[in-house]
Amino acid sequence: MPDPSSIEAKVAERALEYLLAPPSGDDAVINLSSPDELVAAFDGNAGLGFDAVASGETDEHVLAAVDQVLHSSVRTVHPRFMNQNFAGPDPVSVVGDWLGAALNTTAATFEAAPVFTLMESALLSKLARVAGYLPAAASPLPALPPGLFAPGGSSATLYALQLARHRRNPEVVRTGIGTERLVLFVSDAGHYAATKSAAMLGLGTDAVIKVASDFEGAIMPEALADAVVAAKGRGETPFAVIGTAGTTVTSAFDDLNAVADVCVEHDLWFHVDGCYGGSALFSPKHRHLLDGVERSDSFVWNLHKMMGMTQQCSALLVRDPSQLAPCFAGHADYLFQPDKLNADYDSGDRTFQCARRVDALKLWLSWKVRGDEGFAARVEHAYDMAAYTRSRITESGGAFAVVVPGSFTNVVFAWVPPDLRPLELANGTAAQLDQETMDRLHALPPTIKAQMQAEGTGMIGYQPIHGLNTFRMLFMNPAVSTDDVDAILAAIERYGAATLSH
Amino acid sequence: MPDPSSIEAKVAERALEYLLAPPSGDDAVINLSSPDELVAAFDGNAGLGFDAVASGETDEHVLAAVDQVLHSSVRTVHPRFMNQNFAGPDPVSVVGDWLGAALNTTAATFEAAPVFTLMESALLSKLARVAGYLPAAASPLPALPPGLFAPGGSSATLYALQLARHRRNPEVVRTGIGTERLVLFVSDAGHYAATKSAAMLGLGTDAVIKVASDFEGAIMPEALADAVVAAKGRGETPFAVIGTAGTTVTSAFDDLNAVADVCVEHDLWFHVDGCYGGSALFSPKHRHLLDGVERSDSFVWNLHKMMGMTQQCSALLVRDPSQLAPCFAGHADYLFQPDKLNADYDSGDRTFQCARRVDALKLWLSWKVRGDEGFAARVEHAYDMAAYTRSRITESGGAFAVVVPGSFTNVVFAWVPPDLRPLELANGTAAQLDQETMDRLHALPPTIKAQMQAEGTGMIGYQPIHGLNTFRMLFMNPAVSTDDVDAILAAIERYGAATLSH
Repeated sequence: MPDPSSIEAKVAERALEYLLAPPSGDDAVINLSSPDELVAAFDGNAGLGFDAVASGETDEHVLAAVDQVLHSSVRTVHPRFMNQNFAGPDPVSVVGDWLGAALNTTAATFEAAPVFTLMESALLSKLARVAGYLPAAASPLPALPPGLFAPGGSSATLYALQLARHRRNPEVVRTGIGTERLVLFVSDAGHYAATKSAAMLGLGTDAVIKVASDFEGAIMPEALADAVVAAKGRGETPFAVIGTAGTTVTSAFDDLNAVADVCVEHDLWFHVDGCYGGSALFSPKHRHLLDGVERSDSFVWNLHKMMGMTQQCSALLVRDPSQLAPCFAGHADYLFQPDKLNADYDSGDRTFQCARRVDALKLWLSWKVRGDEGFAARVEHAYDMAAYTRSRITESGGAFAVVVPGSFTNVVFAWVPPDLRPLELANGTAAQLDQETMDRLHALPPTIKAQMQAEGTGMIGYQPIHGLNTFRMLFMNPAVSTDDVDAILAAIERYGAATLSH
Repeated sequence: MPDPSSIEAKVAERALEYLLAPPSGDDAVINLSSPDELVAAFDGNAGLGFDAVASGETDEHVLAAVDQVLHSSVRTVHPRFMNQNFAGPDPVSVVGDWLGAALNTTAATFEAAPVFTLMESALLSKLARVAGYLPAAASPLPALPPGLFAPGGSSATLYALQLARHRRNPEVVRTGIGTERLVLFVSDAGHYAATKSAAMLGLGTDAVIKVASDFEGAIMPEALADAVVAAKGRGETPFAVIGTAGTTVTSAFDDLNAVADVCVEHDLWFHVDGCYGGSALFSPKHRHLLDGVERSDSFVWNLHKMMGMTQQCSALLVRDPSQLAPCFAGHADYLFQPDKLNADYDSGDRTFQCARRVDALKLWLSWKVRGDEGFAARVEHAYDMAAYTRSRITESGGAFAVVVPGSFTNVVFAWVPPDLRPLELANGTAAQLDQETMDRLHALPPTIKAQMQAEGTGMIGYQPIHGLNTFRMLFMNPAVSTDDVDAILAAIERYGAATLSH
């Protein structure tokens, strides 16, 4: 039986201290170590590895290890962590997650999760209303809510595509794929979950037809229409289109109404990947970016990205929840007994998984505390910080160059060595540079980022765009201030100059 | 910025109180409410549902809601919760989970999760050594560990079967399933993840050939060999066999060496579903139940079941980790940049998911605190409590009847009304009862369980076995004492008698 001086109480104290006094400003975002250095650091306490026969460690060793974990882990809550499409967890979500872990149950049945089952229903209904799947007015909590929670965006995408295939042919669940060559469409800036899912579903990655996007990263609707017609001409069977609301790299939004038109014309399942950008729906100012999402058949929305829920919190909304059970049910008679109390509320036979963590609780708690207004403010702050960063780049006198103009929360740009200023890189013009300049520019982001990690001053992303390594700053942490943006840009300049002087 | 009087600090305090003073003995296992009653209970505070425009709630309302969550949720930590194949979370695991949530990152890259990447490697290596995949001696932490963590047993099974299909034909990832009719085998007592996975993979549930098991629930190896030959005779292509180590209902173990022999003879992928029973490997006394697991190609092991990790903690071990990347890689260039630091340690492109919760931390912490010995003790205590329960049933003078003798942690039995005692129900003899007796016995468990839930005295499972609803008590919580067993059996007798008197 645990007591307040127990090891668990002490670890909890450490976690709470970190939560209540998060790092910021000039605190390190990371204390960088190599794998070998990390192994050495833990050797002084509990050791990272396990012996052939592993003995229980002393409390002192375990607590020293916990301190090492805190020291050597990336502080994703730090406002200068702009590295990925999650950052700055809402502390209310964190403690909601803690409460769920303490109560440790599975969301699969009402019997084991009465409160969480109803919270899921409440949240999925509310999300469906926000997305325009249902009328906006509040409604009673349905036993069959309009969707499900999944353990991440890739899993939710997989489930959505299985539903799409199921609608085309409900027999495929039982008989497997026939000889039809099913194909689906997504823009070439869309997320790789599409190809991974196609491989898993037995369609193969070749079944994913990548449609050209414009320089911003939004699908070209005419190219989509042409691709569908061409696939039919090749004797293939189009069955689904994925529209992207917030691409991973440039946070671009496909014109969802234009995509919906193509889906209607060709009777295709319309899935919207709003993993990243779905949260724009919370903001009256920005929700127009998703106009047309209400016409989709399924919509995946990761609340653990822009909304700061802890990993993971993925909602998959579906237009027709009556098909969840026929598509996924396993009919386990040890779990979904029809003769038990409130069996009609069981969600477990309406999804792929059996036991599921109660991801709903943290979102429910966070939403109750923040309200719609708080959720909107989080999105709008992210947008405003991105806009500020864009203005700093434009006014940098050529030190920074826009690579993709962008219009949402991702800012994609390059640092330009003084001897190359000014340099036009926007909208694919980088492709016209000579090879030597390209090589110089391409090598800079990894080097600059490595220095930033080594000093712990910040973490930002980079990736090739049209062949050129390009910085990407992602905004979603409400703690980010203009000072943080200024500090990151100054750090890039400093490390860039240092790289050149070597 | 949170402070100690903040709502998050207060919710954390509630979670910690629950953790440090868990319910036991005559405390309620559940305060049963219907969905309507729950909605009414929350109406006095934050409300379960969300308004069309949801305002932020007061701290007072939110805290009252949190108290309601604690009041109305099932206390799975209570030693009289014997309802499912998880129970009694290790408090060290709970706070490990908390620490991971506070640090909120993704396990996909070393860059974002340096410590957790190495912990995964350490744990997968140790688990592989425990399972006999690798020599028992401690080894350096590999950049490419022998497996991965998955968000649950069903997902891990899906990934394993995708690997099995990939070995048969690496092109299928790209080209999709051809015209070959791939089939796999699992016992009819095996988990429904097999059929769900087959549906997802595009093979169809018909591709799962259910092999007869004996009365205990273990596969009949001759029936398996015959089924493989018969499938080939029908022109089908066997590609995988799932051996079960600990069935869901009776905790039966397939003879894994016998299954391995069939796999070797027919060149089939041998997957072991040790989701539930894999933890027997931790006990020198019981690990013989998994003899032969070291011959498998893949092995899934849910540490959130018998070992008390919080939901979820699923390890998928693989014999040949070099095939993980070719099978699953998506090559996202914004994430798995080859030119960044320590890129060879990135695990994200070796699995299906992108972002992953750091499930390794809680297991690492728990193992460091408990040691191998503590893990063994947990398994052995569960076994001992099950054995005690079996002895109580045998010595009950006919009040309880064995339905499946069983030999591990699940005890499967019926309560017998006084006028029917003694009644032989073991090993399928229930099938010889007259219909009226069958109907009477079949109706008892749901009624008795509902009364148990209504009074909160305990929670145990039931399911039909050979057509007869049968109680199932599952042991894994180290807090369970013989008093708890006695109390549950007494409660069953009491509710049974009350049912008859109505």
